[in-house]
Amino acid sequence: MIYLKKSDYMEEALELLEYLETFLTEERKQRFIEILESRTKHFTIAVEDVYQKHNTSALIRSCDIFGIQEAHLIELRNESQLDKNIAMGAEQWVDTYRYPSTATCIEALKKQGYQIIATTPNENSCLLADFDVSLKSAFFFGTEREGLSDEVMQKADSFLKIPMIGFTQSLNVSVSAAIILHDISNKLRESDLNWKLTEIEMIKKRLDWSKKSIQSIEGILQRYHNIKTQ
Amino acid sequence: MIYLKKSDYMEEALELLEYLETFLTEERKQRFIEILESRTKHFTIAVEDVYQKHNTSALIRSCDIFGIQEAHLIELRNESQLDKNIAMGAEQWVDTYRYPSTATCIEALKKQGYQIIATTPNENSCLLADFDVSLKSAFFFGTEREGLSDEVMQKADSFLKIPMIGFTQSLNVSVSAAIILHDISNKLRESDLNWKLTEIEMIKKRLDWSKKSIQSIEGILQRYHNIKTQ
Repeated sequence: MIYLKKSDYMEEALELLEYLETFLTEERKQRFIEILESRTKHFTIAVEDVYQKHNTSALIRSCDIFGIQEAHLIELRNESQLDKNIAMGAEQWVDTYRYPSTATCIEALKKQGYQIIATTPNENSCLLADFDVSLKSAFFFGTEREGLSDEVMQKADSFLKIPMIGFTQSLNVSVSAAIILHDISNKLRESDLNWKLTEIEMIKKRLDWSKKSIQSIEGILQRYHNIKTQ
Repeated sequence: MIYLKKSDYMEEALELLEYLETFLTEERKQRFIEILESRTKHFTIAVEDVYQKHNTSALIRSCDIFGIQEAHLIELRNESQLDKNIAMGAEQWVDTYRYPSTATCIEALKKQGYQIIATTPNENSCLLADFDVSLKSAFFFGTEREGLSDEVMQKADSFLKIPMIGFTQSLNVSVSAAIILHDISNKLRESDLNWKLTEIEMIKKRLDWSKKSIQSIEGILQRYHNIKTQ
């Protein structure tokens, strides 16, 4: 593979994008741009071995709804394939990364500069309303039955909880995640922080989403490359 | 039944409460008082013929968690018995009222001074962040498949939506309700509004909850009344 300078890459990508976008409606093109303006990698989620695949799919759907571009899935015991009906196709628009262990996931996220936030109803947890949105944060969600693993609890930089003021002391994991993502993503967008995707990241996603939206994309890409190499 | 003045009722109720509380642990008594300090009737929810009983139970659980004392259930087609596993007993601590039609429910709520809020992703809806918490409000939630009925949409005083900024344009009804109740109940408790239960309402609930917490309550109440009438 030939190494391209950033500007070369951008030029080639934009050229291909322009071509592919001729196969999309104007409305579709604008929708991609509009959605990408709200997307962020400042926050991400990591899901630890969720017991019901139902829940993982609901989490990915919440990421899409609240503008979180990436989700990290740790698959220990369960074959947690996404439930297509529940995610309603959301997994096409959110980038998912899979890990065989909690350790590899935490390591990867720390390398990317994320603080590890364990979401748990622990006594010492920070209340959601008081959470500082300024740092890059990865929110970990545990299993329905056992909560987060000891590994996450030990390696977490911080703990976060939703205040619960009734008899019931537990929320379904997909409900917890939706409440947290709704709250922090609103605060983020109201802040002066630099939370948006970079220009290159946006172009890449527009390319990716355009490809996913075009039927018989293989043939179209083939024709494009044939023209380019003539 | 002999008509009692308010102060007479309070005196009798307090006397019985004092007696019943001797059957509870100190911790349990304090828990009731603490939870009731956060309970409100300023907000309530109404659920219209929810397709999966699963969802109704999850809504009641959210009411308990976020301090909403009353829930109104409109049962049109479905025999929507609560799913005990999911509500995890929450329906003991939240007062539910059942209606055979949407009209009777709306009428009852309006008589109690509630404005009717239709929760719907409509274009013209007020955004959750902008919702004015100062008025007594009943939040209506519709079915999974069809949303709210035309009747609610026509009679609603206002429309409310959760901003969704991705491709996915729908949230599960129990997730929507949890996000809304979390948000508005936080704002309410931070406000200067008079949102708490009255003293009489709190005493009544302490009596009710004490009765529900005591095994063989029937025999105990019988003994109490025998002593009183000796």
